[in-house]
Amino acid sequence: MSRSSVNFNIEIQPLHNPGLAQEVMNHWNDLTKPPGSLGRLESLVERLALIQGTANPSLARKAMYIFCADHGVTAEGISAYPAEVTPQMVKNFLRGGAAINVLCRQFGIEPVVVDAGVKGPSEPGVVNRKVREGTCNFAREHAMSRQEAEHAMECGVALADEAASQFDVAGVGEMGIGNTTAASALLCAFTGIPAHHAVGRGTGLDDEGLERKVGVVARALALHRPDAADPVGVLSALGGFEIAMMAGFLLGAAQRRLPVVVDGFISGSAALAAQAVAPAIGQYLFFSHQSAEPGHPGMLAGLGAEPLLSLGLRLGEGTGAALAIGVLEAALRLYAEMAAFSGLGVKAK
Amino acid sequence: MSRSSVNFNIEIQPLHNPGLAQEVMNHWNDLTKPPGSLGRLESLVERLALIQGTANPSLARKAMYIFCADHGVTAEGISAYPAEVTPQMVKNFLRGGAAINVLCRQFGIEPVVVDAGVKGPSEPGVVNRKVREGTCNFAREHAMSRQEAEHAMECGVALADEAASQFDVAGVGEMGIGNTTAASALLCAFTGIPAHHAVGRGTGLDDEGLERKVGVVARALALHRPDAADPVGVLSALGGFEIAMMAGFLLGAAQRRLPVVVDGFISGSAALAAQAVAPAIGQYLFFSHQSAEPGHPGMLAGLGAEPLLSLGLRLGEGTGAALAIGVLEAALRLYAEMAAFSGLGVKAK
Repeated sequence: MSRSSVNFNIEIQPLHNPGLAQEVMNHWNDLTKPPGSLGRLESLVERLALIQGTANPSLARKAMYIFCADHGVTAEGISAYPAEVTPQMVKNFLRGGAAINVLCRQFGIEPVVVDAGVKGPSEPGVVNRKVREGTCNFAREHAMSRQEAEHAMECGVALADEAASQFDVAGVGEMGIGNTTAASALLCAFTGIPAHHAVGRGTGLDDEGLERKVGVVARALALHRPDAADPVGVLSALGGFEIAMMAGFLLGAAQRRLPVVVDGFISGSAALAAQAVAPAIGQYLFFSHQSAEPGHPGMLAGLGAEPLLSLGLRLGEGTGAALAIGVLEAALRLYAEMAAFSGLGVKAK
Repeated sequence: MSRSSVNFNIEIQPLHNPGLAQEVMNHWNDLTKPPGSLGRLESLVERLALIQGTANPSLARKAMYIFCADHGVTAEGISAYPAEVTPQMVKNFLRGGAAINVLCRQFGIEPVVVDAGVKGPSEPGVVNRKVREGTCNFAREHAMSRQEAEHAMECGVALADEAASQFDVAGVGEMGIGNTTAASALLCAFTGIPAHHAVGRGTGLDDEGLERKVGVVARALALHRPDAADPVGVLSALGGFEIAMMAGFLLGAAQRRLPVVVDGFISGSAALAAQAVAPAIGQYLFFSHQSAEPGHPGMLAGLGAEPLLSLGLRLGEGTGAALAIGVLEAALRLYAEMAAFSGLGVKAK
């Protein structure tokens, strides 16, 4: 059992149940296909079963938590879009017009829009967990206080508690202009990757903007000297409210044995923070895709993650996670609905 | 225009319509996301539009053609399963119990089971295009006559003609005990890759079986000395009836501008044969996944293909193609259903 170092107690059980794993593989091996021929789809179902603690796991009730917040670091000119786009996109999520809404409709996923710290009043229809109206500019000062970081994480744990009683699986995605800069800084802080390898073009920076963004991250690391052994401190220095809340959500979900599908680069930075709190968390997470951000391969390596899809996505919102939930669901339906070889009277030579 | 060398006329138009491509990209760029941020999903829709010749392509009517046949080369002991499994699996397809049936139900795809040369009488419910009850053993003689190869391909072209008037997209998959051996031999014949790099464990050979399979392919290549410039000759020496018919189907579909999603290693060998007939065909094909067969990366390179998924599948039947159709459909729904930035009054800096 791994216990977190923060002031709320998180207990995450290592996934270890050889009997259950064998039961799942015995069932796969009785289906009308050569053993192992469904590749990673077979191991996905095995892990779902171990997380949910049953040989008949379910993905009937699916949610997508979209954590949204603003970032003071946008003052440094590190995004192709102005900060006003964050609240506009929140409205778009609520109206159903964003990419993640389309994919949620396709895959039967319920979107849950969480305001973790968007500028302006909270929109009707969001889950209002606003810590504050945007972080401070972490290029010059701490993004948030330690108390705010802890509060954001605790809100995430509480949201996961509610999610675990309502859903069989949750995806996590995000929206926040400026948050690839925060995610890049967190990647550097947690893995030691240098800024010029961790920073990418985000939503579409030109060469000059990219250079500026690398400089902002490098200066912030020199200013804050983050200590990877103190994940709450790292989040308070460099994080976003949506990232800290998502990190709490991942921890709370693992504690409650709710499988979570992690989206891309920014969600991955939340997973790095959660992993720094509780190393066993990786077994509870499914990493959906490798994004176009140049720092993502190093981040996935740091998480020990092998993503399911590689489609060059760099949108966020949970779009990659929604597609991956479609793959998970396909795997589970195969497991649940295929005919057995024993029924056909066929045996391998 | 590329014209085939075989005795039926296939005319495949190169995909070239810059105005239409621009129209599609203009629409993508007006949607509420950074330009290009949906990565390969955007170019998939562009190609669908070019194939169907409209800026509003459709995937409403979806089919999965499962080409089935038996292989004389099973006499060499190159498969983990006995040849009797082919007709048993055909029955399983018709009853809805196979992996491909489950995925077709999930993604709303109509399965079409084609008997191209299965041993025994044709099952009620299959599309009966039986050329003969299994090929000859290509380790000792030609798998089929030149006339049989041409007939199989012509049946495929005719099936594609029917498919094009009924469906907006077709997946292709296959079933035939022994057919990874045929596909490996075809890979060697069309690309020059040596047998020991082209042969894998198929449905689950042990080390001894794998060595035997490599030897069978090497001996067959020495016996037949296939000429890649004569694809019908290559198919007649080494092919399966299901592979030759699928090659014809791919050619006929491209001629009728029906987009086709190609499954894995065996379907890829049919694509190699079709490409040898008409090099322009690649633009009409979507390659779904990289399988666990060791020869598949070299095959995909020979096809200039970048697969959408990499899940370690090695089942065939069209399972990878069905999953990829799900990805295509997600891409198209995003294109068709997302809100426009112009509606939100947002502009990039």
